[in-house]
Amino acid sequence: MTALSENIRSKGKRIAFVPTMGALHKGHLSLISIAKEKADIVVVSIYVNPLQFAPNEDFATYPRDIEGDTVKCENAGCDILFVPGNTDLYPEKESFRIDVGEMGKVLDGITRPHFFGGVATVVAKLFHLVRPHIAIFGQKDLQQGIVIKKLVRDFKFNINIILGPIIREGNGLAMSSRNEYLSQHDRDRAGVIFTTLQHGVKTIMAGERDRKIINAEMIKHFRSYGDLNLDYIQAVAALDLETPDAFLPGEEIALLIAAYSGKTRLIDNTIVKVPEHKLDDKTDDRFIELGE
Amino acid sequence: MTALSENIRSKGKRIAFVPTMGALHKGHLSLISIAKEKADIVVVSIYVNPLQFAPNEDFATYPRDIEGDTVKCENAGCDILFVPGNTDLYPEKESFRIDVGEMGKVLDGITRPHFFGGVATVVAKLFHLVRPHIAIFGQKDLQQGIVIKKLVRDFKFNINIILGPIIREGNGLAMSSRNEYLSQHDRDRAGVIFTTLQHGVKTIMAGERDRKIINAEMIKHFRSYGDLNLDYIQAVAALDLETPDAFLPGEEIALLIAAYSGKTRLIDNTIVKVPEHKLDDKTDDRFIELGE
Repeated sequence: MTALSENIRSKGKRIAFVPTMGALHKGHLSLISIAKEKADIVVVSIYVNPLQFAPNEDFATYPRDIEGDTVKCENAGCDILFVPGNTDLYPEKESFRIDVGEMGKVLDGITRPHFFGGVATVVAKLFHLVRPHIAIFGQKDLQQGIVIKKLVRDFKFNINIILGPIIREGNGLAMSSRNEYLSQHDRDRAGVIFTTLQHGVKTIMAGERDRKIINAEMIKHFRSYGDLNLDYIQAVAALDLETPDAFLPGEEIALLIAAYSGKTRLIDNTIVKVPEHKLDDKTDDRFIELGE
Repeated sequence: MTALSENIRSKGKRIAFVPTMGALHKGHLSLISIAKEKADIVVVSIYVNPLQFAPNEDFATYPRDIEGDTVKCENAGCDILFVPGNTDLYPEKESFRIDVGEMGKVLDGITRPHFFGGVATVVAKLFHLVRPHIAIFGQKDLQQGIVIKKLVRDFKFNINIILGPIIREGNGLAMSSRNEYLSQHDRDRAGVIFTTLQHGVKTIMAGERDRKIINAEMIKHFRSYGDLNLDYIQAVAALDLETPDAFLPGEEIALLIAAYSGKTRLIDNTIVKVPEHKLDDKTDDRFIELGE
């Protein structure tokens, strides 16, 4: 793989890389389309990374379909399909790891403490093997995307990271390989995740900047219109996942949800920019408080 | 730096890299000579990495002499001297780090728990910025060299790591920037470190394979012939720093010493191959034990 890449680079061609865990769906294919637009050569990797699964998680049963994936990749215009084996990426009994610090301990990191360090570690290895100019990840895994962007900044990888937009089913459910675990009834019920995000966006566009109130509004909607088990609903700063008391005008807020449909964990998110002016900004709050 | 390197690489030239913390002495210059032999372009970096110092260590007072170092580099044939500032390598309040696991917790890692993770982290950043084909480290920092070799294997850096031989003063004291802290009397006293290593080699060449006996022999010599404060004397497997009860014929043993001369911590080591045959291999130990 590295020899191939060095050869492509030496000809002045640009490489775009889409790392995946396989079980490709329309979401992945949209990332491959973005890759084709941005570069001369598209590399897709398929590797179910053991390091990002906890012992109680679905590593063994995670959907695998290498023949189907190969056909989908070819049809989508992928030039190189890279499928490393386990001993290629973890040849020794104990591999050094990337420690992602606080960013790996919030949101999904609370229930999945192995996850983001595992992702950062395997992505660093893959970046070295594939040597891309650009790498494309799905915005659906937003915390992962923010971690990868910081990995690239901190470790001075010379790679441009692009987050491709979330592709949704008819009822707004974000596409995911894990949706294969769901019945049609489950998929219908999971639509509440998207309507809750929409409610959060509406709340912010109406002028709300208080983080706790935004969260409470979304939780109220989620419980009123559905019956999934909630892991978390959180409004955080999209830049660094920080949780200020109130967001600033012009700041980008990430709204993130994780919920369980039976044993299947579903995640979704959206990013919204805080309006510059509140609806009632024309009245001066201080004057009213002091004067009355 | 990266643009320079990409340009050099695009012309098919090879880059050798010597990362240093400055205060260059003959040991460093010997690494630059090796670099010149092995590649077309030699890059030397000078960067005193805060991440590898503990709060109680000598980060603030570590010897710095950028003008003197620049002259030495030029005279030694260095082509590019790379001197990043602190905010170049650690621009954010918290950087992701490399976790080197068990290998960072033994030997020097016991008294310096920050050290090897800090070294691996900054070296990974420097490798990305400099993009060398070869990197040369001093064997004097043997545990560091073994950690860097594993960093390169685990994270799939396409870089060849060479450990340059230890350069010694007249009495055998390994050259080190920290020797600047020592008086001539201290330097003389520190010669016992080298004679202890020689005694360990002699013990092994005489047929001893039992790790604890080799250690005890070296400690006895160290205490009999000197009065430095000992941190550790250890015989370990040179490949992975493991500590078996006994070493195998043909195996490479690393003998490592760390000791204090006043407040100055000195380290040294040597590598020796276990002879294939013990001196008394012709007699059968079991027969003697059972028969007498």
